[in-house]
Amino acid sequence: MPKVLILMGSKSDLKVAEKGTEILKGFGIEYKVAVASAHRTPKLVEETVTKSDADVIIAIAGLSAALPGVVASLTTRPVIGVPVSGAVNLDALLSVTQMPPGIPVAAVGLDRGDNAAILAAEIMAVGTPALRLKLEEYRKEMEAKIRADSESV
Amino acid sequence: MPKVLILMGSKSDLKVAEKGTEILKGFGIEYKVAVASAHRTPKLVEETVTKSDADVIIAIAGLSAALPGVVASLTTRPVIGVPVSGAVNLDALLSVTQMPPGIPVAAVGLDRGDNAAILAAEIMAVGTPALRLKLEEYRKEMEAKIRADSESV
Amino acid sequence: MPKVLILMGSKSDLKVAEKGTEILKGFGIEYKVAVASAHRTPKLVEETVTKSDADVIIAIAGLSAALPGVVASLTTRPVIGVPVSGAVNLDALLSVTQMPPGIPVAAVGLDRGDNAAILAAEIMAVGTPALRLKLEEYRKEMEAKIRADSESV
Amino acid sequence: MPKVLILMGSKSDLKVAEKGTEILKGFGIEYKVAVASAHRTPKLVEETVTKSDADVIIAIAGLSAALPGVVASLTTRPVIGVPVSGAVNLDALLSVTQMPPGIPVAAVGLDRGDNAAILAAEIMAVGTPALRLKLEEYRKEMEAKIRADSESV
Amino acid sequence: MPKVLILMGSKSDLKVAEKGTEILKGFGIEYKVAVASAHRTPKLVEETVTKSDADVIIAIAGLSAALPGVVASLTTRPVIGVPVSGAVNLDALLSVTQMPPGIPVAAVGLDRGDNAAILAAEIMAVGTPALRLKLEEYRKEMEAKIRADSESV
Amino acid sequence: MPKVLILMGSKSDLKVAEKGTEILKGFGIEYKVAVASAHRTPKLVEETVTKSDADVIIAIAGLSAALPGVVASLTTRPVIGVPVSGAVNLDALLSVTQMPPGIPVAAVGLDRGDNAAILAAEIMAVGTPALRLKLEEYRKEMEAKIRADSESV
Amino acid sequence: MPKVLILMGSKSDLKVAEKGTEILKGFGIEYKVAVASAHRTPKLVEETVTKSDADVIIAIAGLSAALPGVVASLTTRPVIGVPVSGAVNLDALLSVTQMPPGIPVAAVGLDRGDNAAILAAEIMAVGTPALRLKLEEYRKEMEAKIRADSESV
Amino acid sequence: MPKVLILMGSKSDLKVAEKGTEILKGFGIEYKVAVASAHRTPKLVEETVTKSDADVIIAIAGLSAALPGVVASLTTRPVIGVPVSGAVNLDALLSVTQMPPGIPVAAVGLDRGDNAAILAAEIMAVGTPALRLKLEEYRKEMEAKIRADSESV
Repeated sequence: MPKVLILMGSKSDLKVAEKGTEILKGFGIEYKVAVASAHRTPKLVEETVTKSDADVIIAIAGLSAALPGVVASLTTRPVIGVPVSGAVNLDALLSVTQMPPGIPVAAVGLDRGDNAAILAAEIMAVGTPALRLKLEEYRKEMEAKIRADSESV
Repeated sequence: MPKVLILMGSKSDLKVAEKGTEILKGFGIEYKVAVASAHRTPKLVEETVTKSDADVIIAIAGLSAALPGVVASLTTRPVIGVPVSGAVNLDALLSVTQMPPGIPVAAVGLDRGDNAAILAAEIMAVGTPALRLKLEEYRKEMEAKIRADSESV
Repeated sequence: MPKVLILMGSKSDLKVAEKGTEILKGFGIEYKVAVASAHRTPKLVEETVTKSDADVIIAIAGLSAALPGVVASLTTRPVIGVPVSGAVNLDALLSVTQMPPGIPVAAVGLDRGDNAAILAAEIMAVGTPALRLKLEEYRKEMEAKIRADSESV
Repeated sequence: MPKVLILMGSKSDLKVAEKGTEILKGFGIEYKVAVASAHRTPKLVEETVTKSDADVIIAIAGLSAALPGVVASLTTRPVIGVPVSGAVNLDALLSVTQMPPGIPVAAVGLDRGDNAAILAAEIMAVGTPALRLKLEEYRKEMEAKIRADSESV
Repeated sequence: MPKVLILMGSKSDLKVAEKGTEILKGFGIEYKVAVASAHRTPKLVEETVTKSDADVIIAIAGLSAALPGVVASLTTRPVIGVPVSGAVNLDALLSVTQMPPGIPVAAVGLDRGDNAAILAAEIMAVGTPALRLKLEEYRKEMEAKIRADSESV
Repeated sequence: MPKVLILMGSKSDLKVAEKGTEILKGFGIEYKVAVASAHRTPKLVEETVTKSDADVIIAIAGLSAALPGVVASLTTRPVIGVPVSGAVNLDALLSVTQMPPGIPVAAVGLDRGDNAAILAAEIMAVGTPALRLKLEEYRKEMEAKIRADSESV
Repeated sequence: MPKVLILMGSKSDLKVAEKGTEILKGFGIEYKVAVASAHRTPKLVEETVTKSDADVIIAIAGLSAALPGVVASLTTRPVIGVPVSGAVNLDALLSVTQMPPGIPVAAVGLDRGDNAAILAAEIMAVGTPALRLKLEEYRKEMEAKIRADSESV
Repeated sequence: MPKVLILMGSKSDLKVAEKGTEILKGFGIEYKVAVASAHRTPKLVEETVTKSDADVIIAIAGLSAALPGVVASLTTRPVIGVPVSGAVNLDALLSVTQMPPGIPVAAVGLDRGDNAAILAAEIMAVGTPALRLKLEEYRKEMEAKIRADSESV
């Protein structure tokens, strides 16, 4: 079973990360959480990414959110970028999305730590059919909940 | 070896798709290109996605770019979304990125069909080590080219 | 007398929907409220739209607000789209407005469930003169209230 | 059969209007085109709207695009607003969309005269079943064209 | 001594208007405050503007802030437009600023009822030298206050 | 008869200024055109503004368009600011509009040298009734032209 | 040892300034804080900048944040501009950044008084090696703190 | 005399760099130009920055312009960031400006390679009085040119 590394640019991004770890736990996927800033601790980013045996990396950052792109520059493993909301919002969102040709980041929406985790599971499921079943079950539960909501309004 | 489906919302998005097919050819990855619009041919989208045995789907669309999200709603396979540039740009970029919790899209930058293809290869490489080597070679060539550029200026 | 279906992408959009149901009640227009997400329950959207005998559909959604466009793709009845406010605002607003040629959505303003209901009434009044009178009366009351406001300041 | 009035804020918006008249002709819907500016000729707007026996009004304008809202203030008939592109784009788009409670405008996308006409036809079809058939046929042709596009790529 | 009419699109804009009335009182300028909405009570706007013998009109509005432009369309007296803040902000700001050629509005900043009043006084001072002296005194007080602030930090 | 000073931040803004001088000539208003940059020649701005006996000043600038605000800081005469278009547009537009309390600028739209001149005439007409007649005539010609446009389409 | 002048456009910007003074104290750099508004007290700005023997000037301002550019126009010493957040944010950010050719401002991020002070220290360190050591120590502490954060999550 | 390193993220940014080298030549400042991408060649960036004995570094990049921030993370020398224009513009501008606390970048405007060079000269002039004189002379020439422009219009 493949593994996930969740890297956040600052400890203040923990709430966004936890939306993801909750999902990964539910899927029984092994993960590790770390803090390392592209701008303040570039060496720590490099160490953490290079040492990690994770198959997919989730990078979470706000403002001029360079972390996802810097992680992507250090590995050819899939990197999922999560922009973190703030006063401007478009800053993190555009920094994570508008990568140059050659070094993709898989951007998800503002503060979407949950979607980053589900996307990681979907990526792993390409080679791990057991995960596919869990993902499909997850969707069925989501659908059941919304059908119940629809009847309650 | 896993396969890729490239779906574009309109034939006019072909140039963006071709940036991707060129990359996939270079990596020896099998792919299929199709046109299907989330808004104008929802059934065709459903047919194309359901029938396809691709492991990763690239969805390309402009304006209120619903295609990537609609494809993601129909499958638990990883979906890569490519926003296409136009008069506003933020329309497609935000439509592709700001997905609700539960249904992630892996957004790449405006018109970045190339990065969508490289990201697809990175995703496939999680379970296919041969692809990892090709990706690393690709990066080395990129680096060599930039080093040459640096010496020429 | 024609009927209205109000569809919202998430139960959390209920406050916006209720601005509309209050107006419809005042006009004596029959309506039904349901929850169905374009991304999380595409089949439920299709079922709800296909089964509904409503003449006008109001679709309410936030973020990458695909619901109004997806509903419009399933019917040739008029679809009114209501973007829901959030951290970015331009995401839902542009997703609802910037539809491709061929599949229009009648977009109203951010959180404007009330205007969606009035617009639905105006649409129905094209073939139902009794509604026209109610709409004109509604405007007169609005005018009277503002004239009173003007005298009070 | 109901009728359409197309009002544009300036003769320079004619190209956007013609995307609409072409559609209306195809549907056999009677229409009239006029120029009247909310800011430069408010009386002409009032005259044109008041005299017109059209059932649906399409209002096309750029910049601080007040025309659709001003037309809506003069009638309880459905008003479709078409923002026209320019240097800023968000100016016309937001002016047409962000109407106050009580006076809705049905906004379509930037320069989408075509969608304004289709939306007008959908509105009229609520009370005119013959139009419903034409709209469904139009969609089928659209789908056939896209299926052909998909096979050609 | 010339007079000012302050028109706001909704009673909820009163706080912005009061920033202006406080200034006008300080300058001894006569003014009248009224509520009239370009979209909800176009006739009341016309009546109020036509009857008013004010020399300068301040129009305050939010969202698709059509009021300043509509007032400007009804008179050749100088019209000062004040955009009111909300969820989007750029909507009101661009609606007030981006007027078509021929019908200018003198836009001030978001919620700047105070600056609208000072601008009104500056306009009146062109033909009323007594006001010029008051404006210059006002600036001196402003400067004195800032010099005191500078010494206190 | 009062006079106008047109100040532009760079000779490259001449086209925008000329839209204004053409209008002023038509109204028989005396004017002077000068170049002075708030950032590059602050002393020249001060000299030009201080020496000028103009009653109204039009300041034209692009990018971080400080000129209108700096001119306003040097005088209590009415200052009309014209933002000039460029790659970003919102930069000049917001710089001209979002002035702090105490120092208003009367902002007109992007590149609207014409509206700046008409606004200047409207301001002067407060104390100069002859100008009021010219302004009303100008509007009538505008209306006649649009009525002719409306008949020609 | 060189010195810093911190100028803010309004006393309400004090919190942003204090993020900077705390840093400068830590580095043992001499500084002076003053209030002077580009728009409300242009002479005070000129006096303060001209009299000051500071080697680097930090200018802090919100809205149409002209202060940094105006200071830069008065000196050839390096000027660091700090945009202050508000309802729009892009107004101050673009005003500080988009300076015309010839008069640069070194813009830092929204409310980043801290980064302005560090940048001032970096600039001074070009000719003052003792400061270089303090800056490197500061980074090491930052790195140590983040490494501790990483272990704690 | 201190030295400058100009680093650009892509050879396509050469035009922006050359606006800067022309200025540096005029000031007699020694410089070196290199290409190195934060995302595509992170090691080359590290090598180039670490080996360089430049006192000030200018980093030029477009899209999700990480280069200036990454360079700043590798050194405590002053780093000037130049965002490069493209389809979105706000992407590069916000990426360069919105740096996290601790690692400042001195952002200049879009494509402002010239201002980056002048700012570099101003920074160097803190410890190098000869440069101060050249900067003042440069300003005088600028002023003379604008005075000539003003007389010619």
